[in-house]
Order: sequence, then C-alpha cells, then structure tokens
Amino acid sequence: MAADRFNIGLLGFGTVGSAFAQLLEERAGEIERFNERRPVISGVLTRARGSFEEILAGSDLLVELMGGIEPAREYLLTAMRSGKDVVSANKALLSQHGEELFETARERGVRLRFEAAVAGVVPVVRVLEESLSATPIERVHGIVNGTTNFILTEMTHGSSYAAALGEAQRRGFAEADPSDDVSGRDAAAKMAILARLAFGTPVHLREVRYEGIEHLRSDDLEYARELGLGLKLIGTAERRDGGLSVRVHPAFLYAGHPLASVAGPFNAVTVESEAITEITISGPGAGGRQTASAVLGDVVSVMTGGARPPAPPLALPLIEDVQSAFYLHLEMADRPGVLAAVTRVLGEQGVSIKSVVQRGLGENARLVMVTHPVLESRLRAAVDELGEFEFVRSVPRTIRVIEEEFI
Amino acid sequence: MAADRFNIGLLGFGTVGSAFAQLLEERAGEIERFNERRPVISGVLTRARGSFEEILAGSDLLVELMGGIEPAREYLLTAMRSGKDVVSANKALLSQHGEELFETARERGVRLRFEAAVAGVVPVVRVLEESLSATPIERVHGIVNGTTNFILTEMTHGSSYAAALGEAQRRGFAEADPSDDVSGRDAAAKMAILARLAFGTPVHLREVRYEGIEHLRSDDLEYARELGLGLKLIGTAERRDGGLSVRVHPAFLYAGHPLASVAGPFNAVTVESEAITEITISGPGAGGRQTASAVLGDVVSVMTGGARPPAPPLALPLIEDVQSAFYLHLEMADRPGVLAAVTRVLGEQGVSIKSVVQRGLGENARLVMVTHPVLESRLRAAVDELGEFEFVRSVPRTIRVIEEEFI
Repeated sequence: MAADRFNIGLLGFGTVGSAFAQLLEERAGEIERFNERRPVISGVLTRARGSFEEILAGSDLLVELMGGIEPAREYLLTAMRSGKDVVSANKALLSQHGEELFETARERGVRLRFEAAVAGVVPVVRVLEESLSATPIERVHGIVNGTTNFILTEMTHGSSYAAALGEAQRRGFAEADPSDDVSGRDAAAKMAILARLAFGTPVHLREVRYEGIEHLRSDDLEYARELGLGLKLIGTAERRDGGLSVRVHPAFLYAGHPLASVAGPFNAVTVESEAITEITISGPGAGGRQTASAVLGDVVSVMTGGARPPAPPLALPLIEDVQSAFYLHLEMADRPGVLAAVTRVLGEQGVSIKSVVQRGLGENARLVMVTHPVLESRLRAAVDELGEFEFVRSVPRTIRVIEEEFI
Repeated sequence: MAADRFNIGLLGFGTVGSAFAQLLEERAGEIERFNERRPVISGVLTRARGSFEEILAGSDLLVELMGGIEPAREYLLTAMRSGKDVVSANKALLSQHGEELFETARERGVRLRFEAAVAGVVPVVRVLEESLSATPIERVHGIVNGTTNFILTEMTHGSSYAAALGEAQRRGFAEADPSDDVSGRDAAAKMAILARLAFGTPVHLREVRYEGIEHLRSDDLEYARELGLGLKLIGTAERRDGGLSVRVHPAFLYAGHPLASVAGPFNAVTVESEAITEITISGPGAGGRQTASAVLGDVVSVMTGGARPPAPPLALPLIEDVQSAFYLHLEMADRPGVLAAVTRVLGEQGVSIKSVVQRGLGENARLVMVTHPVLESRLRAAVDELGEFEFVRSVPRTIRVIEEEFI
C-alpha cells in the first residue's frame, strides 16, 4: 500500500456498488486535493469473486453495499473488531441489529457511517449528529419513502391507488413486489434508525408501529383537498409523556406544514427543537447514483476525521398509545337519529369533533369528520363501536391529521 | 485549566452572545456526555470589560459574536496565529476578508467555523462542506434573508411594500433602518460566503451583483399569480460558461420550485449537482437563540474533531452577464402599431417572448411578458430602447424568472 492511497474494500457490486465505484473514480482527484490521500477501491467482494479476509486486510475502510442481514452483519462486525472504519447503506441491518453494530463501533473506537441508509441524498444523519448536538430534539417528521410519496402525489391528481402504483412501477420508482414500500415497513426501518440518532434510544424495527397506504382511496384525497389538507405517508419519532413514540402512518398535513409541499419521488425530513424551531431537508429519494453520492460523502467524512464513534444509548421508554387528531370517514345511511347516535359514541370515548362535512343523501350518505387530538386507543374504541351500527355501511376509515402546533 | 474542561473565550455579549452563553449552560452536561470534556465560558470580552490577551491565553477556542470588521478581524487573525480554533457568526467580515481568514486558518492548520453567518439555523455550510464534497456542485439558489422573504410573503397576500415593511418592523423581523436587508446587500454577503464554499472560488462582497426588493409593487405579485409564479429574493451562485456567476435579485419561481413554497421569515437553500439532483434545506431566519444554536453546533463540531481547515482556493472567473428568462412589464398607451414597435425592438436584441398578457385599454394599457432566456445585457439594451418610445408611460419594469430546468 502506497502511503498516499486510501484503500476502500467494497462489499457488493449491484446497482449502488457499481455507481459508487464509478463516482469514486470521477471524484478521486478532487478528494485527493482536499485530503492528501487518493481514495481507491482496493478490492471488491461479490457472490462470484473476492475473498473477504483479503479485502479486509488490504483496506483502510470497508464499504458495505450488499444489503440483507447475513453475511453483511458478520462482515461489518469482523471489520470493526479489526479496527476498521465502515460505511453501510443497509437499512434492514441497521434497523434490526443497530445496537450490536453501534456497541461494537463504540468499543473499538471506529466510525460507522450510514447516511445512505436513511433518506437517500438528504443528509439528515449528518445534520442530526452534528448540527443538532447542541440542541435537544423534540420531534422528527419524515417522508422517508419516495415510492409511496410518488403514489400519493399521483392520487392527489386523481389517479386510483392501483393506477398510481402501476405508474410508479413503469417509471422504476416501485419494485415488481412493492410490499415493503406500500406497507410502510421500509419507512419504519428508516424511522427506527432516525429515532436512535435523534433521541439516543435504541429502537428495533419490530418496535415501530406502521401502517401503509394500500387502503387509501382517491376520495380520501378529495375530501382532504376540501379541508385544505395534504396527504402523506409520515414517519414520526417524538418525545411524548416522558417517553418516545416512533410510528409510520398516512397523515393529513395542514397546507403550511413544511412537508405538505413535497411532491413526487422525494424524501424530506423536518427536525423540531425548541432552540432551532425547525429545519427541513428535502431531496430526491435514492437512485443508484444518488445513493452512491451519499456513500461517498460518508467515505470522505471518515477520511477527513469528521465523524466520531456512536454515542452510548440513553433509553427512553417507548410509548405506544399517543394523541393525534383524526380524520374519520363513515359511509352510512342518513336516517333520523343517526347523527345523534354517532356523536353519543364519540362523546363517550372523549372524541371531540373539530369539523364535519356530510355528503350524499339517504342510504348513500357519507360523514367526514376531523377530531381534536385524542388518544388513539380511545378513537379506536369509538370506531369499533361505530362499526357495529347497522346504519354504518362499511368499516369506518381513519387517517391521522398533523396540525400546526410548533411554530 | 482542569483537563476535563473545554474553555471557550467569548468575544461579544449582545443578543446572540448572551443567548449563546445561556444555551451553552443548558447543554453543557449533554455535550460532556458525548465528548468527555465540559464546555465552559472561560472569559467574556465586551466593550466595557475583559482583556483580549487574557481571554485568548485561557481558552481552547474563541467564539466571535461582536460583528463589524474591526477589531473582530484582528482578534480572529491573532487567535488563529496562536493556533486556536475559532467560530464566528460575522457575515460582514467573512464576505469582505474571507480569503485572509481562510488563508490564515489553512497556514496554521486550525479550524474556522461560521455556520451562523450564512443561513440562520439552516446547516448549509456543514452540508456543503461534508456531504457534498463527493459531488461537484452546479448551482446554489438561496432565500438567505428572512426579512425580505417575510415582506414578499405579506405582499403576496395583498399588502403594499410599505405596509409589509412596517409589519416586519413591528414584529421585530426588520431593523429600524432596513436598508441592508431590503437592498439585497445582506443576502449578497451570504452568497459570497456560500459561493466560496460551494465552488472554492474566493468571492468578495463587492463582486456580487445585487438588487433589492424596494422597487417591487403589489401588481407585480398579482401578475405573477396569474402566470402561476411565486416571487422571492433569490441569491444564486452557479457555474456558467466556464466561470462562476454570483448574484442576488428578485425572481419569479415556477410553482414547483423547492423555494417557491418557503413563506414568512424563513431561510432556505437549494443545492444542485448532477449526482444528487438537488437538496433543499429550510428553517427559520435567525433569532438570537436560533443563531446561538448554530454557533454551539460549530463549537461541538470543533470539540469532536469534525471540522477541518479550509481547502485551498480554486479560482473560477466571475461571469457578469448571464442568461435569464425575464418578466417585462410595460405601462403604455395601446395605439395602432405599438405592439409591432415593441416586438421589433425585442426581436432586434434577440429577446424572444414566451407568454404575454395585455391589460387595460387605450392610454392606460399594460403589457406583461415573460421572455425566453436571454443575456441580461441584451434585455437591458432592449428595455432602454423601449423606455424611449413616447407611448411607454414609465420606466419598463423587469424581474428575472427562474424556470424548471434541472430535474
């Protein structure tokens, strides 16, 4: 190894891996100008070629772009135990084995960077770690899945869910099997990682409650427009009642919310704190080259010493049942006494109504309400009860509403 | 000095200085948990008290929050020459003596941090330096003055310029003498600093062309709405024709532009590059506590070793005359032959019209046009010629238009 080279072992050579190799070649000269070492790929491991041990021995840093849990987990742990810094874009691994990885990095005093695992090119990991260490964070709201944001944007323009999903697949924004995206699971993994960063509390993917967008219908978006709201799949991590709530669900946003105007296959994250009020960062959800640029940013950050080992955890209890305002949509027959029955059930559960719109006549009426904030458990109890009325024609639909509250 | 303290010498104790001291006290415990040293203020220099030499000798880092050129410049240079890292929020100083400061930091191998000098709490300095070192930046567009953005937002809702300025003053967003803000000079200073960071090219405030918002009128905003455009004071730094163009001017933005929805006293910066497409960061324009949190972020960044001395400059030539689309507003008498005369003058200068709206009748007609991109010098030549027609009743008004082009 020449003294003026910075050797990178690359694990994985798929879309992101090959884009990374190409971007590195394009930018190596410029990076050398700043860092006095030229980053080069000293070895590549794929299923077909390469020896992990040799690549590890010959590198200053390992970049893991294989995806999946094993053998990526074992390789990263082994590398860190040998004192090597590592960069990964693996959200599945970080959201399910994050603490083990963080703990190992801390013990060995090595850097573990993963900007590309969270929000595409949006540098929220860096901003959370560095800019905001000076201020306690209250809440992180994120649109962290570009596929679902594209689908919801299409639906806002009148498409059905099925047509919007088809268009996303045609344009390469959604996989043939889109279930990880549309179920909210991908976003939940990213929110687990973000919550760990923002609040120092270990959060496992299985602890994140999530709900997807498959059940949304175009008329939900239509009513939302009438009420002046936008509809997004929102990940939230926030301090609540002395604990931490981490969840993903579709939510209506008031029109002035910084995430309300984020359209198409984009990601965006809003960080709120008393001292800073709020910061929003947005950019395209990742393509191969965009993800590669986030990975290369991490590599440069390690080369310049601009990253530190992870901080020890601070465990906040995870809170399951939180207050939200809700949109509540009932398909029902409009007969005498029906509205009184609905409001009695809501009142008994402490659900108070902020606005209401009734549409249609007779057996085909619809009642669309927005509630004041209420504990989710109370709202669910009310909805279960409403669903049992014979005049309610289908399962009541509920979507959370995020109201202006912080600034 | 105890080994476990990190001593901060504080120069200046005005609004930001005192907010910084308070925030530091609140956060010292948390910062110590991560960094194993407790940051403390070891000395404060104001006009009334303190000795610079003693404060310098007793500190690990100097924080300069005095403002103005001297003695801030001399203090920062002296501190860096003594091997001390420094943090400053002084945009006037950085935009006029930046190269001297950068050069000194580089020679001495010390850190010079200035996040709070540019865009309030919006961490664009950090993002430009670290995340984006992996990718060549093409363009930076910013709303970097919250005061003017507040005024323009009010004007969009129907206020006159004077009423909007009065409201900004009443709410503490504008100074009694607002000329630095409304003339575009404050934004120009910030763009000089941003251009240096994004393109490595030294840019002095006097090299930034700027135009303010004083001449804008409510009916410009009204026509903009009809054309589906928003109006903002935009700072731009971009590669153009092998050089760099840095400028500040009011500009109409198409509705989907990421800066178009930034309303009120906010800052926002969009960074464009081929590999990342674009990233937008937004947040409140600075109040004392917000600025203090950006300063404290810089302090933490120095404590954790997460900042490096500035890179050597790369000089790109500064380009003065660039192509833009323009909005062109003529108050004129509508008589036979008049439209032909206008289009002949525009055509002779190569100004091609994209859309046109005519309003009013007879002597009180108005012609509002949006041009295709044209060199500013050609447009100005055409406008000068148009202004000489006797049927044109007042000086033609022009505002640049930023069109969708990147993604």
